Amino acid sequence: MENLICPGFMAAGIASGLKKTGEKDLGIIFSKIPASTAGVFTSNKVKAAPVLLDMDRIKSGSCQAIIVNSGNANCCTGDKGIEDAESMARYAASGLEIPEDLVLVCSTGVIGEPLPIDKIQHAMPNLIDSLRPEGVYDVARAIMTTDTVPKSVSMQGKINGKTFTVIGIAKGSGMICPDMATMLCFICTDIDADRELLKNFLHNSTQRSFNRITIDGDTSTNDTVIIMANGFSGAVIKSSEHIGYFQNLLDDVLIDLAKQIVRDGEGATKFVEVYVKGALSDNDAHKIANTVANSNLVKTALFGEDANWGRIIAAAGRAKAPLDQGKINIFFDDVLMVKNGMGCGKAVEAEAAKVLMKPELRISVDLNMGSGCASVFTCDFSVDYVKINADYRS
Amino acid sequence: MENLICPGFMAAGIASGLKKTGEKDLGIIFSKIPASTAGVFTSNKVKAAPVLLDMDRIKSGSCQAIIVNSGNANCCTGDKGIEDAESMARYAASGLEIPEDLVLVCSTGVIGEPLPIDKIQHAMPNLIDSLRPEGVYDVARAIMTTDTVPKSVSMQGKINGKTFTVIGIAKGSGMICPDMATMLCFICTDIDADRELLKNFLHNSTQRSFNRITIDGDTSTNDTVIIMANGFSGAVIKSSEHIGYFQNLLDDVLIDLAKQIVRDGEGATKFVEVYVKGALSDNDAHKIANTVANSNLVKTALFGEDANWGRIIAAAGRAKAPLDQGKINIFFDDVLMVKNGMGCGKAVEAEAAKVLMKPELRISVDLNMGSGCASVFTCDFSVDYVKINADYRS
Repeated sequence: MENLICPGFMAAGIASGLKKTGEKDLGIIFSKIPASTAGVFTSNKVKAAPVLLDMDRIKSGSCQAIIVNSGNANCCTGDKGIEDAESMARYAASGLEIPEDLVLVCSTGVIGEPLPIDKIQHAMPNLIDSLRPEGVYDVARAIMTTDTVPKSVSMQGKINGKTFTVIGIAKGSGMICPDMATMLCFICTDIDADRELLKNFLHNSTQRSFNRITIDGDTSTNDTVIIMANGFSGAVIKSSEHIGYFQNLLDDVLIDLAKQIVRDGEGATKFVEVYVKGALSDNDAHKIANTVANSNLVKTALFGEDANWGRIIAAAGRAKAPLDQGKINIFFDDVLMVKNGMGCGKAVEAEAAKVLMKPELRISVDLNMGSGCASVFTCDFSVDYVKINADYRS
Repeated sequence: MENLICPGFMAAGIASGLKKTGEKDLGIIFSKIPASTAGVFTSNKVKAAPVLLDMDRIKSGSCQAIIVNSGNANCCTGDKGIEDAESMARYAASGLEIPEDLVLVCSTGVIGEPLPIDKIQHAMPNLIDSLRPEGVYDVARAIMTTDTVPKSVSMQGKINGKTFTVIGIAKGSGMICPDMATMLCFICTDIDADRELLKNFLHNSTQRSFNRITIDGDTSTNDTVIIMANGFSGAVIKSSEHIGYFQNLLDDVLIDLAKQIVRDGEGATKFVEVYVKGALSDNDAHKIANTVANSNLVKTALFGEDANWGRIIAAAGRAKAPLDQGKINIFFDDVLMVKNGMGCGKAVEAEAAKVLMKPELRISVDLNMGSGCASVFTCDFSVDYVKINADYRS
């Protein structure tokens, strides 16, 4: 476990009884002063109560705490759900002695069941008492649902001689799809950046990370990414050079977390980059990479370690982007498997089979038409994915 | 097995050695006279050699025979693939003593391996010798890949006192998705209809059948539906009344085959109709029905017999169509599970669980916004789907 401390932030994660297993299910992140804050939320038209609440509150560009639970998504819960989300924020605000509208709320878990708000209320004093600088890792644990490992990252940078920190945690696993990929991700940094800058940073990094991964093509009702910047480092973003520098670092943080999510995809045994190049545009490349990365037939073949490139080319062909089947080359890592739309034979297939046995690999599709390119990260599709999702609520 | 005979047609299906198992893998359908013919082909931009050949030949609106193999898709096989498809047609034409350009060719199976054309050539005399009126069922067997049962249907109608017959066979299973759903389907009828009429009939019926089913969201490179009408019955389609009558009957034939394909979806244990109503348009309803019917999370929950309606509403929400989450009602058969976007409680869930134990059920989503509606047929997503597709080529 890396050092997950960011100056000016404290956090805690405990078990409140929402999860039947008795595992951690309630977390809080607290900034000692109100922080510049930006968020990106699910594009799903069905939105959970806390998402609706946060989308409204985050307009102020400022927040001081995030209260989050797993075990229940507080989604499709009607007016009571909105009240419960507001109550969660109020209990946290009261315990932290901060204004209620500086608290954001997140929930993840089963959709459509009333949030046991009494359990959260009851646990709140203990949660607040548990706040400590190194508590972020406990929040990473408290937001897990079908995740098998907590996901976290910590990076540091320097601006004008001042060192700043960016830490991030995320939960993902199932229901991961482009167009707002992760379910929950929280970033804390002690850099000093105004809210408009922060919004741009987060938007750009999300496009380059969570919107480039896919596990099962489903998009959640609760997806939320929040970044809080409290300025404790004294490192202020002023110049365009600073902007580029911080953007790159934030990209790295989010890409790191996005990859962790794919690696922990439900039932996944392989981490696969689908890289498309030679498309007429980046957008076309992205469409094709997405279709390949989302194809159940491709993903089951990856699980079976079967170099069945026919499924890759068939998936590419049904993406809504131009291609010429006679020009397509496909590589498994460095092994050229398909040239000009035709297989390179049994000997090469044996080489490709070796690549497929690796836990991490890259499928490259070269359309040989233009200069558009894009990468999407995905995982294979195993028997365990079905088992996990057939039994999820039992 | 129903009576699969249509006057003026003969057919045969044999084993030519393309399938390692020694099962039937080569079929032929022959009309005693050239028949009016129409076809619908895959929308995938990657098209198999026989599809490219047929799309060209069918422009004449006339054909007399279809030669079809399973075990090899003759796709991504370059110029040699085109030559092989042409050779298949030529061998058949020569054996049948008909012009080569009156023969259509279909292939289904693994992509990217050269077609063992010598085996087909070698088997052709035996295939032709086997032609008989009741041979269509053998073709239904010869086109199976991961299908567990052959799919066929036979219906009769009457126009101006003259009885006519429509018989159909299909193969499907994996790689089934809207926008040209089945892999292969052949319809033979002894009605008398000109080529333009036939084209419209087939287009309309395909929209109402194969384009309304989904198994795994993948679309094949070889999808083909062909109808041949040889006029042997003497029943001639002349009036608009006749047109409506035949269209309805052909719809029934194709919908019947489409349902058989879903029932035999790879690893499927359930047949599910996803019916969306109350949408702003039929098109919106179709988008939502498709997204729900294609969701891995919905389909695995169906396999697990889990009334996890949250996944249904989440899938509806990510479809690219307007909805208001507070207005949505969801039924499992007649059990109202969700009212105004909220669950109806544990007692109802127990009722819904009983519905989910049935092998056939209907999920209805009422958006309560307008009068648009659409149905999509799907199946559940089982552990066996993954097993079948992980090991397909081994």
